[in-house]
Amino acid sequence: MSIVVSNSTIQRNGRLVGETETRTFTFETLRLESGEVLSPVTIAYETYGSLNAGRNNVVLLCHALSGDAHAAGQDRATGAPGWWDSMVGPGKAFDTEKYFIVCSNVLGGCKGTTGPSSIDPATSRPYGLDFPVITIGDMVSAQARLMDHLDIKRLLAVAGGSMGGMQALEWLVSRPGRVQSAIAIATAARHSPQQIAFHEVGRQAIMADPNWKEGNYYGGPLPGRGLAVARMVGHITYMSDLSMEVKFGRRFREDRRPFKFTADFEVEGYLHHRGNSFVERFDANSYLYITKAMDFYDAGRGRPLAEALSEVDARALVVAFKSDWLYPAYQSQEIAKSCKLAGLDATYCEVDSTYGHDAFLLETDEETHLIRHFLDSVSQGRAVDEDEI
Amino acid sequence: MSIVVSNSTIQRNGRLVGETETRTFTFETLRLESGEVLSPVTIAYETYGSLNAGRNNVVLLCHALSGDAHAAGQDRATGAPGWWDSMVGPGKAFDTEKYFIVCSNVLGGCKGTTGPSSIDPATSRPYGLDFPVITIGDMVSAQARLMDHLDIKRLLAVAGGSMGGMQALEWLVSRPGRVQSAIAIATAARHSPQQIAFHEVGRQAIMADPNWKEGNYYGGPLPGRGLAVARMVGHITYMSDLSMEVKFGRRFREDRRPFKFTADFEVEGYLHHRGNSFVERFDANSYLYITKAMDFYDAGRGRPLAEALSEVDARALVVAFKSDWLYPAYQSQEIAKSCKLAGLDATYCEVDSTYGHDAFLLETDEETHLIRHFLDSVSQGRAVDEDEI
Repeated sequence: MSIVVSNSTIQRNGRLVGETETRTFTFETLRLESGEVLSPVTIAYETYGSLNAGRNNVVLLCHALSGDAHAAGQDRATGAPGWWDSMVGPGKAFDTEKYFIVCSNVLGGCKGTTGPSSIDPATSRPYGLDFPVITIGDMVSAQARLMDHLDIKRLLAVAGGSMGGMQALEWLVSRPGRVQSAIAIATAARHSPQQIAFHEVGRQAIMADPNWKEGNYYGGPLPGRGLAVARMVGHITYMSDLSMEVKFGRRFREDRRPFKFTADFEVEGYLHHRGNSFVERFDANSYLYITKAMDFYDAGRGRPLAEALSEVDARALVVAFKSDWLYPAYQSQEIAKSCKLAGLDATYCEVDSTYGHDAFLLETDEETHLIRHFLDSVSQGRAVDEDEI
Repeated sequence: MSIVVSNSTIQRNGRLVGETETRTFTFETLRLESGEVLSPVTIAYETYGSLNAGRNNVVLLCHALSGDAHAAGQDRATGAPGWWDSMVGPGKAFDTEKYFIVCSNVLGGCKGTTGPSSIDPATSRPYGLDFPVITIGDMVSAQARLMDHLDIKRLLAVAGGSMGGMQALEWLVSRPGRVQSAIAIATAARHSPQQIAFHEVGRQAIMADPNWKEGNYYGGPLPGRGLAVARMVGHITYMSDLSMEVKFGRRFREDRRPFKFTADFEVEGYLHHRGNSFVERFDANSYLYITKAMDFYDAGRGRPLAEALSEVDARALVVAFKSDWLYPAYQSQEIAKSCKLAGLDATYCEVDSTYGHDAFLLETDEETHLIRHFLDSVSQGRAVDEDEI
């Protein structure tokens, strides 16, 4: 599927969000699903585009496990592009000429929002494992507080891939009055035991690292080897058998050293690189808390999802990718089916891709077409005709 | 598929191999593919059934990554059943009333055959990482020396699943004159980058364990947490998404403790148990050496497999399992196709199973039918009619 973008659009705005800066908003207390109260809470967020006079052109983007508030544009300090930069900007899927886009770092994260590496006011030291258990519902509660702060009553759409898709679902289920539509990409309403198992391997690798010290490693050496192993497992599950074959095959590393257990194959070098660079940018305790939140998540809260959605009046776009074996298409089909059973106007699309789970970040052409069309339709208040997609 | 076994057979022999004992054979030197010489070499092995007068009823069983020589019967000392006990015995797939079955622990292993935990005569201490790199070819060379010792010139069949299937292929390629047939189950002629990647995660987990100490941990605390993580990754890849769903679902553990990062779900408890019990029975350095041997293995030695098989005059049975995503059916199809291209009489069977890679140990009914029929046919010297299977 190719996307035609008019030259005038490209020339007019260069398809760039430009420089961005992460801002923060702090509020006093957040009551968590567990009953515990977290205080204070800071939310890191970015916005792109302009809020219209009706304050009804807001799209909330929700990031995946290792993402952050910086979804688009170039970070003012580092120049780094946002994690969904290919999808957010003038003329892009999330068109900043039409929509006011908000993205915030999740509760429990380590990119500006309060998480286990934040200072616990009770001790003046980082929380570590004193940080309370958090849930996908709590992440959404924090986002809702940010929307209150921005004086946004209702979202045109909540969109996200992977864990971001869980948050989009959670908005539907927990705050049906505040969301007009949800875009759930490459996600699940609840984790399968296989998904839990892969996460548990990562957690065990982190907790096996002697530098982890029951979570009290701040100010000392990081549990980097454990976190790197966790990330390596993750990266295997984000790719597909075929995309690994295409990218690496069985090629040896050029700078392979004649020692037995270093990285001999390119794929090993890639995993080492991804694992090690992750250690520099992510907090191991956040990894523990966020993966547990994903594993515990059940959009239906033990009921069939369709029941949990029965009071919802919203539109839904559910997207899966054929080669995604971490979040297999059947899980997206279950979401779409539940939406339809609950009477929601839901569209399910299965995109042909070889990229595996990473496709939600890489298959931007087809995603752009689907999302632009869906948002246009939602903002115009008309139903999506599936034949048009 | 159900297997009819006559009552008389069951009554006569009770379908039992009975008590078994692992024996050893030691020889002076083994030249490895790397050019290095290993000396001395001990091979641990078991045999079941009787060698016939023509010495031509020998079936060699090759075990997978974590297996050993104890394929069948009850170990005399511990009473433990063999790893393929359901397949080996009177009236079973590998019928001990017809065949003389041999199974030996692989070179590099830790169950009686020389490996990194063996004493290095040069230092009188365990080899650790001074153990030379070994290959699947070296494992087969050691097995060939055992056959010489047993005065067995030619094998009726070499059979194995997973890494055992690689050894079966290697017998075909490297010693075509000594093997009448090969049974390669749930295996690959060479690892894909995804298979290498999963192994590398396990190796990194082991080497990240501070008790590993560059392989010099013998006599001290074991790198148990790292090895357990490696085994946990392995177990996920041995099962299927569906078999995990059936076995665990999202059930919580009954003895779940109210602490954040212990095992909450049954699937987590299962992985912990499997990981921890593995530490008691397997050597971490053997895990490193054997997984590297698998990753490096290329039955074609860089050439297409069909070329490597061009001088081979043998029969082949290649079996894959539909839900096996670690050794996907396409890899078995490639083996079968290469055999046929090389003019071998090869049969390919894809067994419908939900067990994933573990199916080669669990789908014994269908395997029994396929293997018994194949071995009957090979021993009678006639071609297998695929329609009969």
